[in-house]
Amino acid sequence: MFSGTLQDLTDELASLPGVGPKGASRIAFHVLNAPAEEVERLISALGAVKEKVRLCERCFNVAEQPLCAICQDQRRDQSVICVVEEPKDVLAVERTREYRGLYHVLGGAISPIRGIGPDDLHIRELLIRLGAEPITEVILATDPNIEGEATATYLARALHTLEVPVTRLASGLPVGGDLEYADEVTLSRALEGRRSL
Amino acid sequence: MFSGTLQDLTDELASLPGVGPKGASRIAFHVLNAPAEEVERLISALGAVKEKVRLCERCFNVAEQPLCAICQDQRRDQSVICVVEEPKDVLAVERTREYRGLYHVLGGAISPIRGIGPDDLHIRELLIRLGAEPITEVILATDPNIEGEATATYLARALHTLEVPVTRLASGLPVGGDLEYADEVTLSRALEGRRSL
Repeated sequence: MFSGTLQDLTDELASLPGVGPKGASRIAFHVLNAPAEEVERLISALGAVKEKVRLCERCFNVAEQPLCAICQDQRRDQSVICVVEEPKDVLAVERTREYRGLYHVLGGAISPIRGIGPDDLHIRELLIRLGAEPITEVILATDPNIEGEATATYLARALHTLEVPVTRLASGLPVGGDLEYADEVTLSRALEGRRSL
Repeated sequence: MFSGTLQDLTDELASLPGVGPKGASRIAFHVLNAPAEEVERLISALGAVKEKVRLCERCFNVAEQPLCAICQDQRRDQSVICVVEEPKDVLAVERTREYRGLYHVLGGAISPIRGIGPDDLHIRELLIRLGAEPITEVILATDPNIEGEATATYLARALHTLEVPVTRLASGLPVGGDLEYADEVTLSRALEGRRSL
């Protein structure tokens, strides 16, 4: 490339998730032509995230204060905890507008291949919460893949002795999908979990 | 979103070309979890592009000095100018490794709809170069779309009186493509430009 500086930016952008070399080059040229204020805003937004955003002391969701906005909100149902892998999963559940309880973010899923065991996740903190808070249901909302399922199975066993009801998100056909295109595992789960009408 | 700071970054990212709301959210969480040094490198690369990169005084390609790397390179063929719309088009031609001449970047294409006329492009500067430099061929490499074609037609007329040979990039079927899927305009061009073997 004719400009080392522009190439440096392209390289940095290409290392972001979901940005390929062509997309990175396109963004780099956009930055070159964009008004200085726009780029300033992006730069300060990047810096602010690294400076201000931390993890909630109680549930490990992202927060800008010791407790996250959800843990601070006294109108939330304090008796239900939804256990997810990552803060972005909290966002996904919140978008449904169906859930009014609390969360607990594990910080990942059990994965022997990546060397992530139960002690690397915030499982101990979940057990402590269950001992201290008046919880009547724990919803396991880890991802419906091998690692998420393994984590849910591990948690179900670990929580068994605490006598708190534990539930798991339903697996089945995605709404708006097409039976024909469903993979066999999803279709098996949909059959398994069939409900009487 | 539970963190205004993270939402701000997501909004800024979503305004970049080719980055949708989901991609922006994914990058924002990546930034949150990435090592501080990585984000620092991205921030300084963004700043450096706005600070250091400017346009070449001769050909309007991107440059970090008064002249761009190509104009500075005395081994390039000083008798051919390839006219392109944008600096990224210079990159595209350079990637072919087939061209060893100079460039002239117009800074866009003629577009009545967007209110861009010939005076908004670096056409005057091209004519001045053609008067001052010993040029034996001008290759018009504007985009093969309506605006690019209009610009090429305009330039061909404007250069006519200067008695410099003017050529245009060939239009035709993309290599590796499938005849069946070619649009009719491209296929017509391919027929029109057929060559004897």
